[in-house]
Amino acid sequence: MKTSKKQTSASLKKNMEKLAGKARDACRVLASLDSKKKNEVLCAMGSALLDHMGLILEANRKDVEAAQKKRLSKSFIERLTLDERRICEMAESLGEVSKLDDPVGVPIKAWARPNGLQISKVRVPIGVILVIYEARPNVTSDCAGLCFKSGNAVILKGGSDAIRSNEAIFNVLQREIVRAGLPSGTISFVETADRRAVDVLLQMDRYINLVMPRGGESLIREVRDKSRIPVIKHYKGVCHIFVDASADVAMAKNIVMNAKVQRPSVCNAVETLLVHQDIAEGFLPMMVQALQDAGVEVRGCSRTRRVMPNIRRAVEADWYAEYLDLILSVKVVKDVREAIDHINHYGSSHSDAIVTQDQQNAELFLKDVDSACVYVNASTRFTDGYQFGLGAEIGISTDRLHARGPMGLEELTTYKYVIRGTGQVRE
Amino acid sequence: MKTSKKQTSASLKKNMEKLAGKARDACRVLASLDSKKKNEVLCAMGSALLDHMGLILEANRKDVEAAQKKRLSKSFIERLTLDERRICEMAESLGEVSKLDDPVGVPIKAWARPNGLQISKVRVPIGVILVIYEARPNVTSDCAGLCFKSGNAVILKGGSDAIRSNEAIFNVLQREIVRAGLPSGTISFVETADRRAVDVLLQMDRYINLVMPRGGESLIREVRDKSRIPVIKHYKGVCHIFVDASADVAMAKNIVMNAKVQRPSVCNAVETLLVHQDIAEGFLPMMVQALQDAGVEVRGCSRTRRVMPNIRRAVEADWYAEYLDLILSVKVVKDVREAIDHINHYGSSHSDAIVTQDQQNAELFLKDVDSACVYVNASTRFTDGYQFGLGAEIGISTDRLHARGPMGLEELTTYKYVIRGTGQVRE
Repeated sequence: MKTSKKQTSASLKKNMEKLAGKARDACRVLASLDSKKKNEVLCAMGSALLDHMGLILEANRKDVEAAQKKRLSKSFIERLTLDERRICEMAESLGEVSKLDDPVGVPIKAWARPNGLQISKVRVPIGVILVIYEARPNVTSDCAGLCFKSGNAVILKGGSDAIRSNEAIFNVLQREIVRAGLPSGTISFVETADRRAVDVLLQMDRYINLVMPRGGESLIREVRDKSRIPVIKHYKGVCHIFVDASADVAMAKNIVMNAKVQRPSVCNAVETLLVHQDIAEGFLPMMVQALQDAGVEVRGCSRTRRVMPNIRRAVEADWYAEYLDLILSVKVVKDVREAIDHINHYGSSHSDAIVTQDQQNAELFLKDVDSACVYVNASTRFTDGYQFGLGAEIGISTDRLHARGPMGLEELTTYKYVIRGTGQVRE
Repeated sequence: MKTSKKQTSASLKKNMEKLAGKARDACRVLASLDSKKKNEVLCAMGSALLDHMGLILEANRKDVEAAQKKRLSKSFIERLTLDERRICEMAESLGEVSKLDDPVGVPIKAWARPNGLQISKVRVPIGVILVIYEARPNVTSDCAGLCFKSGNAVILKGGSDAIRSNEAIFNVLQREIVRAGLPSGTISFVETADRRAVDVLLQMDRYINLVMPRGGESLIREVRDKSRIPVIKHYKGVCHIFVDASADVAMAKNIVMNAKVQRPSVCNAVETLLVHQDIAEGFLPMMVQALQDAGVEVRGCSRTRRVMPNIRRAVEADWYAEYLDLILSVKVVKDVREAIDHINHYGSSHSDAIVTQDQQNAELFLKDVDSACVYVNASTRFTDGYQFGLGAEIGISTDRLHARGPMGLEELTTYKYVIRGTGQVRE
């Protein structure tokens, strides 16, 4: 028995090595593929998704049935379920990516040295990217499209509960890759539900250059702990809005409502409201009423509850919580300094805003809040590649290295220095 | 006994946590320190090194004596040994860093959105950087200076054989930090020679944002395997020069001699020469003679040895070797394609050059060689922050993410998005 298990493990390793090696070979071809060809293939992939809609929906129906049998949560099944509209959106996204500027080969800067050397710093693809995700099948085509456009080979490892849907989508995309004469390793799909496959891939730094886990905290932590390959984390969004003493109250209310209610399930929605003590008494009743009218459950610190005694008490865990739901924790703070310290301590370095008319406090907040996106007088909901004018994103990085905030095509590239000389040697 | 060992391990962990926590606190202060103050402190640190030269040399003498007793290698002891000139160079380096532009707070780009949002992408420090190095005591002050100027707190962990020298240098620098009223966590020094200290620090991703191992391959691999914190590797330089059929032969000879002989012990020196088969017979005798006259041992592939039968045979390991010495391996290749494939297979993605008069081959080489720095008609020895005009560097990154090639002050920063609004909410 032991031998047979060992053999299985060896054969798993061999299969993963073959897959990763093919991706490595493909990325050499992709690095010099011209934009026109890439855009044609992206459009063809989009059309192919529409052409094979029935097939994809059928595969998805089986995944959903299995998930229901396993009594997985409603929100899980909601994320898993595809319909015609969602497949159309996936196809449209591929079309959108085809319209974005190709970052590969673009010079970031160029200069000449006194000895005549011409130096330029040029964008190049990262190489091979492993994306590990959970139950959203649209991630399959979204990530494939963005990695392909930025000249990277991608290895897709989705959650086992979505494996039929993901495989159906992958097969459709893969057929277009092969039809275009591109190497099959351009997009790879880990077909096994064996969890050890990920462990094996995370050791393959010879082939894979970057890992992006997309999913819950436990998945991200597990990947980080096991990976020998650099990881960029798209971690939770515990976003804050601080309403300063000098805030335009109507503006503050409008921003808080937008950031909490417009789409509570996303990472750039606000989770904690901080209110300056000097305006708490006037501001809180009006704000809480509006939130409650919109169906938001408000949880408050003791000072908040002195003004609004009927709301639930916020406990320590609330300050760390990413609710992704119609829940908001509220804390009264002494001043902008306490607000900043709270955010740096409890936040997730994602997106945080101050509402104020005080220029000094605004600048202090922008400088000292250590988050990817810091706002004055605007909703945190703008943290998004399209809203920033950068185009589609593969996620919002809460890491500090390589990419921070919305991670689009440019952030899926690195650079090389190209130096042209006429025989120069070093003195 | 077991209990006592456990306690020691717990107390080690506690000490490291205290140290890392202080660094974390310090980095919040450093992030908004103005350039003038930073430059004054850098100059004061430089002067202090000169003022305490005797003390540092005395500490170093003890390290060197201990190393000699341990019969450590001559080159190890050479790297370990300080003298007045080396300390003067350390002081000068700090002065140089004070003159470089401060990258912190500099906008990388700024734009407005149709809804009136003003977005800017601004450089900010990375945070807390752990530098793990071996026996070169000058790394202590070089890294302290670069991290300080870029607004980062630094934790220094040098090799145990240099601990007295490093501690003496650290104490001198630290006194200037405290004298300037800055938090002591600005520069931290791991005083214990206990190897477990590193293991403990590599788990502290709550406090530390980046790890940079500077040293041999085994140190780097060990850090990569153990670290939960992102690592940027400054790995070996297996650099190549490919002499194409159309090369200006005199230029090629001049470049190869410079890249091999001028300073063979550094990572941007050439280790493998690739020669186009069409010119091998004419070029090799002249080239090999010149190399041998300069004391270089030449090792060749079978085709090289057909032209030069008296040189030693290169074995597979030679193609992977970073000699850092007066040794050069030589291979005859069919064409530029074979040269590129050889470099991508055996190289270390550091610096590689082509010598050619053929524009097409030059462009193919620049595009397809997957290295941080790719050269046409120039010596690989130019891969250096100062030579590029970028200023002092903390190392040459052979990684692909965040920083590639010379890693200077800019590469010691990350960015944040600063968004200024007038009440905008998302539709």
